[in-house]
Amino acid sequence: MARNLGLEVGVDVAEQIRVEAARLFHQRGYGMTAIREIAEAAGISSSTMYHHFRNKQDVLFAISRQFMIDFNNALLPVLNDSTRAPRDRLDDAIGLHLKISSERHPELLSIRGNRGALSPVQLDTIVGLQATYQRAIRDVVAAIQGPETAPDDVAITTMALMDLINGVCQWFDPSGRLSIDEIADRYRHLARSLVVGAAP
Amino acid sequence: MARNLGLEVGVDVAEQIRVEAARLFHQRGYGMTAIREIAEAAGISSSTMYHHFRNKQDVLFAISRQFMIDFNNALLPVLNDSTRAPRDRLDDAIGLHLKISSERHPELLSIRGNRGALSPVQLDTIVGLQATYQRAIRDVVAAIQGPETAPDDVAITTMALMDLINGVCQWFDPSGRLSIDEIADRYRHLARSLVVGAAP
Repeated sequence: MARNLGLEVGVDVAEQIRVEAARLFHQRGYGMTAIREIAEAAGISSSTMYHHFRNKQDVLFAISRQFMIDFNNALLPVLNDSTRAPRDRLDDAIGLHLKISSERHPELLSIRGNRGALSPVQLDTIVGLQATYQRAIRDVVAAIQGPETAPDDVAITTMALMDLINGVCQWFDPSGRLSIDEIADRYRHLARSLVVGAAP
Repeated sequence: MARNLGLEVGVDVAEQIRVEAARLFHQRGYGMTAIREIAEAAGISSSTMYHHFRNKQDVLFAISRQFMIDFNNALLPVLNDSTRAPRDRLDDAIGLHLKISSERHPELLSIRGNRGALSPVQLDTIVGLQATYQRAIRDVVAAIQGPETAPDDVAITTMALMDLINGVCQWFDPSGRLSIDEIADRYRHLARSLVVGAAP
């Protein structure tokens, strides 16, 4: 990984800080990581660090916010594309969800494990971004299950589906026998069984 | 809740400590709870507290261990009862899993959120108890899916099913519109769709 990158190099220093901080939070834990160590890992001085972030909590918030923005930017166009069949949109969303979760799992696990470290206002922002994603999933579930399915049942299937696809990054082993693409193939099938099987 | 219970009263003091500690860990966080506060909440002196547990980590381990033992004692006979159809065993296990998770959610969430606070040997014990449960779930999934299903596919369906049923206690709201029994009714159906739908 590149070292001693200054502001002048033209790379996105804030992004470099987020990536290195997420790696450290994931490896050592948020509480055990000092902001000075994040600056060192990102190859910048402490003064450059404080030019971008006031404190460690703001770094965690920036990681969480950017991850959810990128996630939604990738997933929402797929989920909301009304020119395509809802089942095809769900299939593609499952694949993308698992791909991004696997590629960016230090960020994702940093967010999951440290929600309590964010301020209430910061947490509201993250919860809002996650709710936007969840509504898009719910709309696709509703479209697949059809109008005769009660809203409570659509809501329960949506929660079940979210738990199903969010669970993978907790146990997926990149050095294991199955690749994330092979797992995604099974999960497209599992998600479809869950959603179609739960319709009346 | 009863206060000022001493060893002489004949109640299980260790259990009282575990219950109060789990409530405090859940409400305030493990790191923010002092062992003195656990003793106070359990209505015992610090010396009685130290008679039972050397430190806070041992209290967390005792909570985790006892929860998993109780959980396995309730679930394994249901899952392993070879006189009954595998689908019926899975149905009953889903209901019990959600019922215990809901009744004892402070313990369960204390365990989930603080695995990193256990020693490696303590964590091994908990992981071992959880693995016993997961194997019993896997065997029922295998029995439902039949011998033509590949072991990798049984394993993936098992992980998906575990994530499905473990997810509920993170979002279930006891003051919400649906009771845990009503959610369990839906989840029995969802679990069946997942397991049967994923068979070849």
